[in-house]
Amino acid sequence: MKIVESGIRAVNQGENIRVVTPVNIYECTLGDDVFVGPFVEIQKGCVIGNRSKIQSHTFICENVTLGDDCFIGHGVTFANDLFKTGSPDSCAENWINIVLGNAVTVGSGATILTTEICSGAVIGAGSVVTKPVLVKGIYAGNPAKLLRLL
Amino acid sequence: MKIVESGIRAVNQGENIRVVTPVNIYECTLGDDVFVGPFVEIQKGCVIGNRSKIQSHTFICENVTLGDDCFIGHGVTFANDLFKTGSPDSCAENWINIVLGNAVTVGSGATILTTEICSGAVIGAGSVVTKPVLVKGIYAGNPAKLLRLL
Amino acid sequence: MKIVESGIRAVNQGENIRVVTPVNIYECTLGDDVFVGPFVEIQKGCVIGNRSKIQSHTFICENVTLGDDCFIGHGVTFANDLFKTGSPDSCAENWINIVLGNAVTVGSGATILTTEICSGAVIGAGSVVTKPVLVKGIYAGNPAKLLRLL
Repeated sequence: MKIVESGIRAVNQGENIRVVTPVNIYECTLGDDVFVGPFVEIQKGCVIGNRSKIQSHTFICENVTLGDDCFIGHGVTFANDLFKTGSPDSCAENWINIVLGNAVTVGSGATILTTEICSGAVIGAGSVVTKPVLVKGIYAGNPAKLLRLL
Repeated sequence: MKIVESGIRAVNQGENIRVVTPVNIYECTLGDDVFVGPFVEIQKGCVIGNRSKIQSHTFICENVTLGDDCFIGHGVTFANDLFKTGSPDSCAENWINIVLGNAVTVGSGATILTTEICSGAVIGAGSVVTKPVLVKGIYAGNPAKLLRLL
Repeated sequence: MKIVESGIRAVNQGENIRVVTPVNIYECTLGDDVFVGPFVEIQKGCVIGNRSKIQSHTFICENVTLGDDCFIGHGVTFANDLFKTGSPDSCAENWINIVLGNAVTVGSGATILTTEICSGAVIGAGSVVTKPVLVKGIYAGNPAKLLRLL
């Protein structure tokens, strides 16, 4: 059995970042004043904007870009392989990229399966977001639907 | 980058508590015979009643009170900031308090977004609880609804 | 307070296994070429088939059997005590066994509450599976329903 220890590896770092370990964060960029809680994994190719907060237990898959001032709650899961072929796609070129604008709020326990969430949008806790969120508003449910505009 | 290690800090402890590390538990109260599994975070101001069990991967936010003999499954998330203003509220005075009675059972993967769950109630795995649970019964779904009385 | 450290204990191991720590894995069997990500718990009596991958934050409860070539996403939760008596059942003989066939794909954030998922089935991210999956297809939602055959 080959054991690899979690840690912080090859991270392009801004100023004044705070991280509560254990975490597994590698080959990504964290902006200024970013906070990352414990039991978080952030994979390669991600960019976390300035002042964004990633709470405990959250998983951010490859190639997710968060704008500035985002709040990602606890136990949020991002997924970029949508199994369109009926199974996991080992070719990363087929995975979606996920882009969140500025000041996006994602409630705890939500699952993000879409390419885009626009600036200022709010995703309710426990929601499953299956389609792009293009209009600023509050969204919730499985699948997530617009509750009201902001 | 400022690294803070998870741990157990300033916990008011009863007798015969068992904890599987790593965990992040701080400024809260654990009663007698409490069990806490690995990869759990319990934040400040929480009170966990006697003989209650908190399984792995669960997140308990600030100011949650559990009665005695509660069972909180794996990967359960509590949230106290309901983003009522359309974004995270930095003022903790605006967050809800969450109170569970005695012998409450919360299934794995559930999300708790409400102020109260009454004694003896059962929340199904994967449910999202958005309203107070005031009558003893089994609740499930997103949002959680009463399936049957107990 | 009694502190127990997570770790890898009494695991029946195949060849060429890779594990990213911290994890809590005990009294179970991991086949050849298995991958286990960080913040994973696998409990006693589980069997993980050859080449199966268990991603970060996933919880696999007692007596789960996965076939070969399964992909279990991030933050997936298996539960074997369905609280049929209206509370947790302390008698493990009353818990269900959960068996997944070969090449089963379970999306991130899903909750598995059933006895069987057949070979080749795909469970969408964020789904809650409450009934046996006996026909190869893509299933999603809470509760999970068949979206299309494969």
